[in-house]
Amino acid sequence: MKKIDGGILAAKGFKAGAAACGVKANGMFDVGIFYSTAPAITAAIFTQNSIKAAPVQLSIKNCQNHKVQAIVVNSGNANCMTGEKGKAHAAQMARDTARFLDINKDEVLVASTGIIGKPLPIDKVQVGIQEAFKNLSESTAADFAKAIMTTDTVPKTAAYECQIGGQRVVIGGCAKGSGMIQPNMATMLGFLTSDAAIAPELLDKALKEAARTSFNSITVDGCTSTNDTVAIMANGQAGNATITEKNEDYKTFLETLRQACLDLALMVVRGGEGANILVTVRVNGAADYAQAKSIAYAVANSPLVKTAAHGKTGNWGRIAQAVGTLGLAITEDSFGIDVTNPADDEFNITISLKLGDSTATIYTCDLSKEYVDINVEYN
Amino acid sequence: MKKIDGGILAAKGFKAGAAACGVKANGMFDVGIFYSTAPAITAAIFTQNSIKAAPVQLSIKNCQNHKVQAIVVNSGNANCMTGEKGKAHAAQMARDTARFLDINKDEVLVASTGIIGKPLPIDKVQVGIQEAFKNLSESTAADFAKAIMTTDTVPKTAAYECQIGGQRVVIGGCAKGSGMIQPNMATMLGFLTSDAAIAPELLDKALKEAARTSFNSITVDGCTSTNDTVAIMANGQAGNATITEKNEDYKTFLETLRQACLDLALMVVRGGEGANILVTVRVNGAADYAQAKSIAYAVANSPLVKTAAHGKTGNWGRIAQAVGTLGLAITEDSFGIDVTNPADDEFNITISLKLGDSTATIYTCDLSKEYVDINVEYN
Repeated sequence: MKKIDGGILAAKGFKAGAAACGVKANGMFDVGIFYSTAPAITAAIFTQNSIKAAPVQLSIKNCQNHKVQAIVVNSGNANCMTGEKGKAHAAQMARDTARFLDINKDEVLVASTGIIGKPLPIDKVQVGIQEAFKNLSESTAADFAKAIMTTDTVPKTAAYECQIGGQRVVIGGCAKGSGMIQPNMATMLGFLTSDAAIAPELLDKALKEAARTSFNSITVDGCTSTNDTVAIMANGQAGNATITEKNEDYKTFLETLRQACLDLALMVVRGGEGANILVTVRVNGAADYAQAKSIAYAVANSPLVKTAAHGKTGNWGRIAQAVGTLGLAITEDSFGIDVTNPADDEFNITISLKLGDSTATIYTCDLSKEYVDINVEYN
Repeated sequence: MKKIDGGILAAKGFKAGAAACGVKANGMFDVGIFYSTAPAITAAIFTQNSIKAAPVQLSIKNCQNHKVQAIVVNSGNANCMTGEKGKAHAAQMARDTARFLDINKDEVLVASTGIIGKPLPIDKVQVGIQEAFKNLSESTAADFAKAIMTTDTVPKTAAYECQIGGQRVVIGGCAKGSGMIQPNMATMLGFLTSDAAIAPELLDKALKEAARTSFNSITVDGCTSTNDTVAIMANGQAGNATITEKNEDYKTFLETLRQACLDLALMVVRGGEGANILVTVRVNGAADYAQAKSIAYAVANSPLVKTAAHGKTGNWGRIAQAVGTLGLAITEDSFGIDVTNPADDEFNITISLKLGDSTATIYTCDLSKEYVDINVEYN
């Protein structure tokens, strides 16, 4: 596996386009499309929040049989809690994109990110989709990555190549997310492409497994968005023999995908609202993975731990307090806490229990005054 | 029921004393004692955190048969995660207090609040206990209230009188708490006294019931302390016929206690670290009380809701997001959100569901940059 450039267009057979249509007040790109020029399959995972935005509801339906070949995204408005009109707007975005690309409207995944509860300015978005279509090219990965940003300060892209069955296979992608970031779809939006040939059900399994320890192992503020979507599209253009079972080829694909997802997820944490420090919380010796993860999340979401990290102090009393809130059968003598500061912008917390052999790692960031500033919103 | 002055010494037959022994670096009062001059009973509730400070472990034992007549407290050091030495120090505090007051060492409740994981400077505390004993009087309620403060900016006291069986009965108290404030012992420390005559098991029941909708219905930062303690001591000096069943007298006692506890709990929220605004989150139409409370807490603990409250904006998208994280069978159409701003420093959020008839109310505060400042701790 080797890190390469190119982001979401690093793999063969994909094009992307972006446009600024005025949904975002700052005039930046706010509509993006990407698609596979060859027939492709798509696997996707979505927010676990009971309140699902209109585009999420539509995309869940369209992804059911994995036959998705294009993705259209807008930023600046989440099209969430927008009623029947919101559903019609999401469907309109799919229809417009399908018409321009000459594919079926059911083969489009729609994603939106931004403010909740305001009607989507669909006229502007329709103009944006047309414009993004005109801009489609194989060299616009950076523009697409910008088009999905909201309060993000930098675009987030990653790409890797690996060898599968003697062929060079590429997985690349981009992500956005900085607030409302938490378990069960931690990044708001993450999009990946690959030229691998792989069976739909294995693409699905690989995405879920890769997301478990990346996008689903991060938190900025413990808040689960209504719009979280991570999707991967694969088009087989690498020419490898199709991966149809969990063999060595699958493992190579999975590990490459896992690395790309982890890169993107850590960029989301490092780019968290007001974040200065990457805090890695590792739990060892838990009874099972779920327990390990819940302990790590309890520590990672504690505002007292996060403010201590901001001050670069290993306040282990606060860490112990957070561990203790879960009602586990532990006492002060039955676990250890180790805090290290390997780099100026990194903070590692390790909690060692004696309850079993399971481990989990969660990534978060410090809590700073900038987070408060960004979220106070005097509008 | 009528609000009166006098705090923890408003009821007949109690004395308190305070001293500054140097546990707190700022030279303020940091040791306090109060006791009943007549035989008394005590009911208490403690933190639900698995990690319980040494004084909490001792106090749980001593409160088992309700025979507690004195309470000794220090602030500035929590005596938590301090091993066998910590247990010995807590026992020493009880022994010293008992010796001065000429009671049994098992009749003393010990409470500590402050930093976790540092050895208690027991020599200083012992000097402080002696000094506090010398200062015992019926007019030192304010001094005692100051002696339990840590990052609190103001002392918190309340007192009420009511009529029970033709006698004037008084319930008064004080509390401390400003950070690490959350469900299941929300205030770090709350102490109440009453001159009511009441059976121990009913005092116990009344405290639990009153705490449910007061101390156990508040949150500042969603963090449960290792030292939380709320205790009430009753000495029968009011001369009412002893309350031995859940009759009208019990109801009057309970409602008066509930009001005193709610006053103190709301003072804790208003005095939360960096707090400017009291945020009341009410949930209607939940399936049961536990569900209503968990929804209200999810909203009250969301940093996005709390920063929005700081900016005095009713960002109901963030409220909906928080409700949705619990995995309830709800959609955007099945609940209502109402936000009002009845006063400059008050924010009311009402969430109306259609899942049943249960309601719950949780009180929290806004999240400000001052909270971050206070907790960054560059020490």
